[in-house]
Amino acid sequence: MNVTRIDLKSHVRTVPDWPAPGVQFRDITPLLQDAQLLREVVERLASRYRDPALRPDRVAGLDARGFIVGAALAYALGLGFVPIRKQGKLPFRTIAETYELEYGSATLELHTDAVAPGERVLLVDDLIATGGTMMAGKRLLERLGAEVVEAAAIVDLPELGGADRLRAAGLPVHCLMSFGGH
Amino acid sequence: MNVTRIDLKSHVRTVPDWPAPGVQFRDITPLLQDAQLLREVVERLASRYRDPALRPDRVAGLDARGFIVGAALAYALGLGFVPIRKQGKLPFRTIAETYELEYGSATLELHTDAVAPGERVLLVDDLIATGGTMMAGKRLLERLGAEVVEAAAIVDLPELGGADRLRAAGLPVHCLMSFGGH
Repeated sequence: MNVTRIDLKSHVRTVPDWPAPGVQFRDITPLLQDAQLLREVVERLASRYRDPALRPDRVAGLDARGFIVGAALAYALGLGFVPIRKQGKLPFRTIAETYELEYGSATLELHTDAVAPGERVLLVDDLIATGGTMMAGKRLLERLGAEVVEAAAIVDLPELGGADRLRAAGLPVHCLMSFGGH
Repeated sequence: MNVTRIDLKSHVRTVPDWPAPGVQFRDITPLLQDAQLLREVVERLASRYRDPALRPDRVAGLDARGFIVGAALAYALGLGFVPIRKQGKLPFRTIAETYELEYGSATLELHTDAVAPGERVLLVDDLIATGGTMMAGKRLLERLGAEVVEAAAIVDLPELGGADRLRAAGLPVHCLMSFGGH
């Protein structure tokens, strides 16, 4: 247990009007680049998933910021790490899921041998906005027969409704912090 | 010390003719997705950089596979992690380096507050081919006043000359394995 609890949220940097005017981008790189803060982020997540009731069999991370948190978390938990990648990046046999963005669409891919049927998989990204990426990741893992036990992220943006959508689809959500309002 | 030494190389998957005819792609996802193999990869690198003579102040990883190894390694070493990203992905103030590819060019970016002058930084990617990406990462870090102490990767492809180029530029290279010949 920490005697003093680090205020992780105060270290997230808000970048105004990025990537588009009116958007307040929540930049987690200050959390990642500081040794103590990175350790705290990973340990808070790891302590949750060390609980035998929640412990997954494997960790899947979403391209590309989800690789950073997800891989460190997998290592901390002593689990393997599976990358869910943008289209055209995985060399072996893949399955694909396309999902809608504000303008256009995007496709994610997963190696067909990435998880085994019946495995409990934790899905990790840096941030939950509309939940579209997490939902596509869930569908990919479930098509291989895995059970996605939770979606974990550092930041939730509840006003964009992603966490609600994921929960409504039967996927529990756990985030270390949330940013409401602008 | 391990009594039995795991043969990591036998778990790298060679995918023929990907991403182009004649290329033998070395796919490290089987190493990442297995708990014991991921632990072994990270521990072999971490044990090297725990040596006080080699221990860096921070770890920088190259977008996107370098995030996986780099972030787990940073966590294992108790260090912060800095992402070096493809163009247009970092929201704060950045510097950029463009480098040549076989066809065309690519640009990498780094946040200007990612490292401090005088810091010793370890540069991490999954694989060294021509060394162009590592070299661009080195230039970015050095422009911020950091000292890049070593380039580390899982796989070296010595026939492509990247490790030789990096060493000739004054950057030591450490890889867990190499694949020569086709």
